[in-house]
Amino acid sequence: MKLLEDRILKDGKVLGGDVLKVDSFLNHQIDVPFLCELGKELHRLYEGAGVNKVLTIEASGIGIACITAQYFGCPVVFAKKAKTSNIADDLYSAQVHSYTHGVTNNIVVSRSYLSPEDRVLIIDDFLANGCALEGLTEVCQQAGATVVGCGIVVEKQYQGGGDKLRRSGIRVESLAKIAAMTDGRITFC
Amino acid sequence: MKLLEDRILKDGKVLGGDVLKVDSFLNHQIDVPFLCELGKELHRLYEGAGVNKVLTIEASGIGIACITAQYFGCPVVFAKKAKTSNIADDLYSAQVHSYTHGVTNNIVVSRSYLSPEDRVLIIDDFLANGCALEGLTEVCQQAGATVVGCGIVVEKQYQGGGDKLRRSGIRVESLAKIAAMTDGRITFC
Repeated sequence: MKLLEDRILKDGKVLGGDVLKVDSFLNHQIDVPFLCELGKELHRLYEGAGVNKVLTIEASGIGIACITAQYFGCPVVFAKKAKTSNIADDLYSAQVHSYTHGVTNNIVVSRSYLSPEDRVLIIDDFLANGCALEGLTEVCQQAGATVVGCGIVVEKQYQGGGDKLRRSGIRVESLAKIAAMTDGRITFC
Repeated sequence: MKLLEDRILKDGKVLGGDVLKVDSFLNHQIDVPFLCELGKELHRLYEGAGVNKVLTIEASGIGIACITAQYFGCPVVFAKKAKTSNIADDLYSAQVHSYTHGVTNNIVVSRSYLSPEDRVLIIDDFLANGCALEGLTEVCQQAGATVVGCGIVVEKQYQGGGDKLRRSGIRVESLAKIAAMTDGRITFC
């Protein structure tokens, strides 16, 4: 999506080799009118796929998930990061490793809010190694819900998580796909 | 707002005396088309007040903040809960005590995203003792930004936080105000 690529080139900052900071418009300050354009594009990509629920993970996925869900007219469920490994009976849960923070979290979703009737679009702001999306996919499998696909704002394609998911048969649509970040320069696929 | 009061009576659950659980439509699963109606009402209340930024706190405030901000055509900034008490120079910060979780968190906002030019609408899903809103207000003061007011989905009026803020001169608009929760029965103001 050219609008997004242009914005990343204009306002994104490459830090310490592999960190792309887009917190001026995506995940600390959120440019909501801009987010609406991204949400409309995700809706266009998945229109007609029968999406009746959007699933994301707290915190930075919630904004793009809610903005996108309004075009589908469907609810959002956001997975919570659980502090303990004691997971209650009324929750679906999966482990998600964060390479950024060097920790493994449990993510949990109440059993009340995912069911076999759900056709789920998984939305997140970033896709790198794919651990978060794998965890969200696992939660959907536990619920017997159908994963229609994933809608991502920025995919770091060179980290391989997106292609691993695609090889497993999951549709993954990313609005911007980064092929490389070298010497502070961003190259899109 | 009658639409919201009716929904709380229909789907809210009063647990253990003082906990109102609305996670079927507000803060775990989010009924986005319903949230749009709440956002339009918050926009109606603050229309003409010159709001050019919405400030909230992760995680459950982000959805209603983004949905509301689109009607103002302005960005959202969400304060992050910081794990350490070592706050970097490039951040505004304030302490927020959570009675629910029995902990005090630092909340932080990058200095890049709040400035004296900002006319801020603070939005959150819940208002009880008001600690989160006081922290967000303090962050605005540090930035020299103007707090236009607060827009809240559910205020537990009997816990006093909203009226304390109002007495300090801050405009607080709550879409539903709960006067009492007794024996599992909810009474609105």
